[in-house]
Amino acid sequence: MTFEFEILATDGLARAGVFHTPHGDIPTPVFAPVGTVGTVKAVPPRDLYEIGASLVLANTYHLHLRPGDELVRDLGGLHQFMGWRGPMLTDSGGFQVFSLTQINKIDDDGVTFRSHIDGRKLRFTPEFSMKIQQNLGADIIMCFDECPVPTDRQIVERALKRTHDWAIRCREAHPDDTHQALFGIVQGGIFPDLREQSATFLQSIGFPGYAIGGLAVGETKSQMYATLDVTMPLMPTDKPRYLMGVGEPDDLAESVLRGVDIFDCVMPTRVARHGSALTPDGRVNMRNQVYAKDPAPLQADCNCYTCRTFSRAYIRHLVHAKELLAHYLLSIHNIHFLINHMTKMRQAIFDGQLKAYTESFLKRYMG
Amino acid sequence: MTFEFEILATDGLARAGVFHTPHGDIPTPVFAPVGTVGTVKAVPPRDLYEIGASLVLANTYHLHLRPGDELVRDLGGLHQFMGWRGPMLTDSGGFQVFSLTQINKIDDDGVTFRSHIDGRKLRFTPEFSMKIQQNLGADIIMCFDECPVPTDRQIVERALKRTHDWAIRCREAHPDDTHQALFGIVQGGIFPDLREQSATFLQSIGFPGYAIGGLAVGETKSQMYATLDVTMPLMPTDKPRYLMGVGEPDDLAESVLRGVDIFDCVMPTRVARHGSALTPDGRVNMRNQVYAKDPAPLQADCNCYTCRTFSRAYIRHLVHAKELLAHYLLSIHNIHFLINHMTKMRQAIFDGQLKAYTESFLKRYMG
Repeated sequence: MTFEFEILATDGLARAGVFHTPHGDIPTPVFAPVGTVGTVKAVPPRDLYEIGASLVLANTYHLHLRPGDELVRDLGGLHQFMGWRGPMLTDSGGFQVFSLTQINKIDDDGVTFRSHIDGRKLRFTPEFSMKIQQNLGADIIMCFDECPVPTDRQIVERALKRTHDWAIRCREAHPDDTHQALFGIVQGGIFPDLREQSATFLQSIGFPGYAIGGLAVGETKSQMYATLDVTMPLMPTDKPRYLMGVGEPDDLAESVLRGVDIFDCVMPTRVARHGSALTPDGRVNMRNQVYAKDPAPLQADCNCYTCRTFSRAYIRHLVHAKELLAHYLLSIHNIHFLINHMTKMRQAIFDGQLKAYTESFLKRYMG
Repeated sequence: MTFEFEILATDGLARAGVFHTPHGDIPTPVFAPVGTVGTVKAVPPRDLYEIGASLVLANTYHLHLRPGDELVRDLGGLHQFMGWRGPMLTDSGGFQVFSLTQINKIDDDGVTFRSHIDGRKLRFTPEFSMKIQQNLGADIIMCFDECPVPTDRQIVERALKRTHDWAIRCREAHPDDTHQALFGIVQGGIFPDLREQSATFLQSIGFPGYAIGGLAVGETKSQMYATLDVTMPLMPTDKPRYLMGVGEPDDLAESVLRGVDIFDCVMPTRVARHGSALTPDGRVNMRNQVYAKDPAPLQADCNCYTCRTFSRAYIRHLVHAKELLAHYLLSIHNIHFLINHMTKMRQAIFDGQLKAYTESFLKRYMG
């Protein structure tokens, strides 16, 4: 059944499941690489299949600006446009509007702002975000929300009221989840009572999945984990839970332990473009002279194309010479690293060994 | 047999053959994409196999500077280092020394110049070029030559004398073609008598293949074709003939007609990085607004990954948004376009239809 969420095993609060979508099944917990403007930077879709990606995120704000969501719709939707035939998720545009643009006005109806590309004045409302996301046609779409700094209670409270009003309007503008599943976003910053209020309110509207928004935006890691500790038990157990914008390997581990099912982050491709590789021993800067003559692959036990084919010395040379291929090879490895990390956690859940896996992983990665 | 050149068919002056190398067979005529610093820019080796590339060029000058030919040798040679297991060719470094660097001194022994990267003083001699190319380990290596402007007779004459002396020294420094075949380079600019002198002299030394150097460097196309007209009949018929640095589709057609077997050029990947695609109707700038809503592939009858998967509208979007994937997709298509062009000419030679193919191709491409 479309958008059915099956939980196949649990281990503590963690769950291993499958989320069924019109473009295929998503094994959870899952990490989604981000294709901001309709391309996971430097990585062709066929490489994403090979890596084992089962969900790709794209950004509503960016695609509305360029090339335009109506153009994408007229060309058959985002799957067709970007050549990715698997499950896809679009965000609401809210986070980008609040983090990238010059805001002119926030009112209860929506947000007026200037494009970060050409400065033209634009206005997003919940209804308009729904319209854009319907034009793009992703399998999972998100409610338009206000994303404030999570640590200022007064600001968070006011934003929460709007986010809830807007969630109602999004649900009304997208009443039918048959083709696209609309997820609600639980906000409330780092304040347990607001998170509880938000989780309860959104469930009263009813969504096929729920996100935890407003984290990984400036709070400390311990604040983030503490917020998850209080929020996760408030979320329905039979729906997927999506922690937006989180992708650091340690955060993925800590969050899966707490019951999160879906993640996305630009980190693996962004650090790749800065010449860094994710490894079990932490993030390493491949520009370092120490790798100049190193015949080993980025990671000894990795079976991605990069590690099967090239040495650290070669990657280091490409980074040093500012060669385009460095972006491709490091992006592939880094996405593979996170997806492999999720796969191992999923297996550990089936085996009832998640805590042991996580401790061992974190000890080495953070060590 | 290693480095045996078999001619399988001729059509006028044109030849269809196979050049056997330690890393596999090269069907000729052949176009080699260029991997300047040990990477065909933005294109992984496995995509080159898929496109049908059978020969890749790399640059001795660039690799000596970065990462260093001794490092490449210590890591198993250039094939191993860059992950390309097919036939490979390195140039001598001469062209780069004369075109990229600040020359301090040219004398009969060699050239002293400053690195274009960090300004450090370096000296190339014929023996040193051979040493570097032996360290890199390409299948085909080239004599170190002086590459002057081809239209100033006095300069060309003086350079030719040096090029011939240096060819003798290269042959002495690399007397055995068992593992790496050393090609001689016929110089002489646009002057028929100097080309004849050069072709005769080099054959008296004896090489398993001969290049035509010093063309496509500023002379007109008709000067280039006229020079080929007088030079090609002077070259041995039983050895491969390599026209260095040529890759414009019309030049490939005109040169194959005149009996050239091997080509290389950075053009397909360079124009890709500028957002242009090669098509049977000429080179098109994909930045153009006219493609914004175009659902067709770059080229209707092309079976490269780019054309099988993506629309002009998507490519245009990637170029417009300065996305890295644009470089990859356009580079793949453009290299495929040239290799497909060569494959069609090769078949036309077998069919005795090269003139008809060429006329039809040029009419459409230049039209």
